[in-house]
Amino acid sequence: MTAQLIDGTRIAREVRARVAAEVTEFRERTGIVPGLATILVGEDPASEVYVRNKRRLAVETGMADLHRHLDADVAQPTVAAIIEELAHDDAVSGILLQLPLPRHLESGPLIDLIPALKDVDGLTTLSAGLLARGRPGLRPCTPSGVITLIDSTGISLEGLNAVVVGRSELVGGPMSRLLLERNATVTTAHSRTRDLVAVASEADVLIAAAGVPHLIGAEHVKPGAVVIDVGIHRTESGLTGDVRFDEVSAVAGWITPVPGGVGPMTIATLLANTVTAARMQWEQRQLASRA
Amino acid sequence: MTAQLIDGTRIAREVRARVAAEVTEFRERTGIVPGLATILVGEDPASEVYVRNKRRLAVETGMADLHRHLDADVAQPTVAAIIEELAHDDAVSGILLQLPLPRHLESGPLIDLIPALKDVDGLTTLSAGLLARGRPGLRPCTPSGVITLIDSTGISLEGLNAVVVGRSELVGGPMSRLLLERNATVTTAHSRTRDLVAVASEADVLIAAAGVPHLIGAEHVKPGAVVIDVGIHRTESGLTGDVRFDEVSAVAGWITPVPGGVGPMTIATLLANTVTAARMQWEQRQLASRA
Repeated sequence: MTAQLIDGTRIAREVRARVAAEVTEFRERTGIVPGLATILVGEDPASEVYVRNKRRLAVETGMADLHRHLDADVAQPTVAAIIEELAHDDAVSGILLQLPLPRHLESGPLIDLIPALKDVDGLTTLSAGLLARGRPGLRPCTPSGVITLIDSTGISLEGLNAVVVGRSELVGGPMSRLLLERNATVTTAHSRTRDLVAVASEADVLIAAAGVPHLIGAEHVKPGAVVIDVGIHRTESGLTGDVRFDEVSAVAGWITPVPGGVGPMTIATLLANTVTAARMQWEQRQLASRA
Repeated sequence: MTAQLIDGTRIAREVRARVAAEVTEFRERTGIVPGLATILVGEDPASEVYVRNKRRLAVETGMADLHRHLDADVAQPTVAAIIEELAHDDAVSGILLQLPLPRHLESGPLIDLIPALKDVDGLTTLSAGLLARGRPGLRPCTPSGVITLIDSTGISLEGLNAVVVGRSELVGGPMSRLLLERNATVTTAHSRTRDLVAVASEADVLIAAAGVPHLIGAEHVKPGAVVIDVGIHRTESGLTGDVRFDEVSAVAGWITPVPGGVGPMTIATLLANTVTAARMQWEQRQLASRA
């Protein structure tokens, strides 16, 4: 292995420590404790684990844990009413609707009931539009976390060739946009890309977010490149990513492991978004009270 | 010259003829005449010409011309009130706020008062979010018109390398996204791109939208590529684009002229968006009346 490891577990811990300090500063300055409202519908075991971790780390960083657990057969209007109640509750800084929802619920319209200022997952249409237009707003957690990981290497993205493999709404799409904001030249590749080796091997920074186990090998990687593996797949031999770690780490300059790379960053970024949201809401209320 | 010319003037005429037929069909089926509300603030001569052309071609395609001309010193709340009135007026299918506005007005919040269903310029944050998320919605006119021009060549974008030079909110940004929807592998280059020749010369489809006269020369163009010139600049020797037409047309497979390329498509696409908007609003009212 020649690549340096990007330790997502350590960097996520550092982000959380920074968030905890910001929560303390905000609480002392304003008297407000940022609150994260998580909504879990039903009993999906993976979702239960994710939500439990989010709540635990929110509490660890000094936030209020405002959880709602809804029955698996809850009706769409009931979920909508709960989101609207949380939207109007000043104690709620961020609202997170844990996905996927049970089949009978339509997630799109429910997500869009979350006000942009409380959209700590960055998934609403308005948040996507703010990102597309380069306006201030809350950004999706996983791609934001990837930017933090790249920054941790000390490498500036300005003018670099960045290639994102994958164009999903949650990761690939916003990822490309965030890299562009950092002045990288950004290429989005995907399942219809004709010659992925040719495209990927031009990348100074390669983001593997295709959702295909072991898709990216040494032949896709320019020597010395930064390789970020967003994939996470459960296989017989354990957790693995979109990148063939052993062969790529012999070529790349920097690489994230799976697990322990992008994964831990997602929750850390969610918490960072929640304290940002609390601050934005407070500033808006100050402006409104002065008007 | 070896390149085939993409005749935007002719293709725009064809689009307008199709729009006129759709307007007739829609009027006969629903009794509704699609209406385009243009808002012009002040006396900027270029803006007056643009708005006059939009109104004239709207009328030519059978739409109602619902124009508002506001004084140069109109107050922000007055413009806001007019947009909100048009937003609630069922006779108005599309609302177009002609930019740029006089300095004392803030365009962003005014544009975002236009409902997504009437946003025929595709410029609101919500429309940008719908595009970013790949959801149905009205798309910005210039990049949509470029897609129509590419389609006119008979070349399928699927799997091709497309390079967009420029990342503006109005053109470059949405252009990249529309090319991605057509399954091209899309690279966004810009002023910070280190080696534009290397990046651009990989393109099967090259979109010049940098706003820099004569930026793109033969060295940027892969033999046989489709070259679309979005630039339009007034120089001493007449109108010119971002592309050095003479030398590039000796290399490219297809090329748009300036003028007579992308320019005429923008209004044609605006009219197409307006009839689409009328149809979407009608369908929504039908749904609402049944509920």
